[in-house]
Amino acid sequence: MAAAQLQPPRCGRRRGAAVETGSGYLLATVRATRSRYDGRMIRTALLSVADRATAGQHEDRAVQAIREVLAAGPFVEVDYQVVPDEQALIRAKLRLLTEDDAVDLVLTTGGIGLAPRDRAPEATLEVVEREIPGIAEAMRVAAARGDARALLGRGVAGVRRGTLVVNLPAAPESARAALAAVAPVLAAASDAVHGRPPGRDPI
Amino acid sequence: MAAAQLQPPRCGRRRGAAVETGSGYLLATVRATRSRYDGRMIRTALLSVADRATAGQHEDRAVQAIREVLAAGPFVEVDYQVVPDEQALIRAKLRLLTEDDAVDLVLTTGGIGLAPRDRAPEATLEVVEREIPGIAEAMRVAAARGDARALLGRGVAGVRRGTLVVNLPAAPESARAALAAVAPVLAAASDAVHGRPPGRDPI
Amino acid sequence: MAAAQLQPPRCGRRRGAAVETGSGYLLATVRATRSRYDGRMIRTALLSVADRATAGQHEDRAVQAIREVLAAGPFVEVDYQVVPDEQALIRAKLRLLTEDDAVDLVLTTGGIGLAPRDRAPEATLEVVEREIPGIAEAMRVAAARGDARALLGRGVAGVRRGTLVVNLPAAPESARAALAAVAPVLAAASDAVHGRPPGRDPI
Repeated sequence: MAAAQLQPPRCGRRRGAAVETGSGYLLATVRATRSRYDGRMIRTALLSVADRATAGQHEDRAVQAIREVLAAGPFVEVDYQVVPDEQALIRAKLRLLTEDDAVDLVLTTGGIGLAPRDRAPEATLEVVEREIPGIAEAMRVAAARGDARALLGRGVAGVRRGTLVVNLPAAPESARAALAAVAPVLAAASDAVHGRPPGRDPI
Repeated sequence: MAAAQLQPPRCGRRRGAAVETGSGYLLATVRATRSRYDGRMIRTALLSVADRATAGQHEDRAVQAIREVLAAGPFVEVDYQVVPDEQALIRAKLRLLTEDDAVDLVLTTGGIGLAPRDRAPEATLEVVEREIPGIAEAMRVAAARGDARALLGRGVAGVRRGTLVVNLPAAPESARAALAAVAPVLAAASDAVHGRPPGRDPI
Repeated sequence: MAAAQLQPPRCGRRRGAAVETGSGYLLATVRATRSRYDGRMIRTALLSVADRATAGQHEDRAVQAIREVLAAGPFVEVDYQVVPDEQALIRAKLRLLTEDDAVDLVLTTGGIGLAPRDRAPEATLEVVEREIPGIAEAMRVAAARGDARALLGRGVAGVRRGTLVVNLPAAPESARAALAAVAPVLAAASDAVHGRPPGRDPI
């Protein structure tokens, strides 16, 4: 697929403003989004875990890579926020996003490595009710084909209250490869966690 | 391997009756089985987790697929039961089967997806003493080659009291691919958990 | 790579004596090692978990295979010890080795299978602060290409106090394949756990 085809959705760009304006903006926009898209679009919130040591130099490129993958599938970005790499802050954001009926999928980026401040998986495990280990495994394998260090990523995937949470790497190309590897099954996952009947067979 | 070669063992067909006649039937038959097969046959119990929502429409095909794989290896079916998708009921069945010295392997099918009632992995983790993560990983990878949604399966494998427990998917082709991927190592696994010396090297 | 190129480092051979002379020898030698190697060498301790049933017949070959892989990379062997397959003894050795600032990586071999006495993963999980699941997954996949039974290995990888701990199989060829699959990322892992900046992107 040519990179030129992969433009981020228009609403995704506007969502960049949500960082400053807070969750009131999220809720208002999500309600508007709900009426504009049919139920089979996966309403996706992006949560960028900002590494204080490198101060934002990677986050923007990772989010851009994620948006390019989302634009190719049945995804609509309904929120974008940045959170510092503090476990309690990540956990609080994940709780808020997974309690919102208007969010089907939360994609985090960053904070999954081995540095002491990398705590996104720990925060996610505090929040999700059940893990989906195959998503994490498939993401690692796919990303490691491009950068072997992706094997060190400790990202997890799970479900809370019908909302999926998936931890993506901070490295832009690893984030892109990881998300592309699992994007085709995230629609089926979203159907399943909402109790909607699957297309054909069960899993 | 041609499908025509893969007939279910005769005792497997008779075992279908065990659903109605209960565990007394199991024990009597297993004792008979023990004298008829040598110790290197893996005495296998099938436990079909029935999805109440789809009411048995997949279980039969999945069990049929599993029997075709078993027929190609050193496996003998010694029991077949159906259990509703209730965690406590699955757990109780697994306890009973793993306490029976005449069962080497319990294969469950169904209940490993993301629907709220999918609780087979949770029930299995309550029962097993130790997990064998590589079996679950290999099953997911193999099944996902045919149906990407198999990545969402949360099935686990483990050991209790010398008996292996492996969670297979409900989708027939996924169940077949998953079991075929690990069947060659289940004999080695059964030897190891019984403390029998391995053929050559240790693991 | 020709086997002839893969000679164990000279210090690795001398380390064989440490089994008899105990940890005082380790500390003295490690201090000497520290001044001789630059900080980017990964100071590696080998811990062979001796299977009482097979009484040392595999340990030597597995350690030899591990040394051949280490010789090809930025690793320097700083200790080699043998511990019986008792969970408490393994745990105690791992605590000691991971508290030593002069050890970057502990490689265990053996004790990861399904026999009742195989407790190296359990001991490791008691010691590490966080797991690195992708290392364990990649090792199983790589080793299973040569011996399918490597799928049954329950080895884990993790970090304690800035020191990596990785469980390798007891079978020499499985140990070699498993270590070779992850050796290229262990330097990046060691940098990350010490908080050193990565070469290019984050993980």
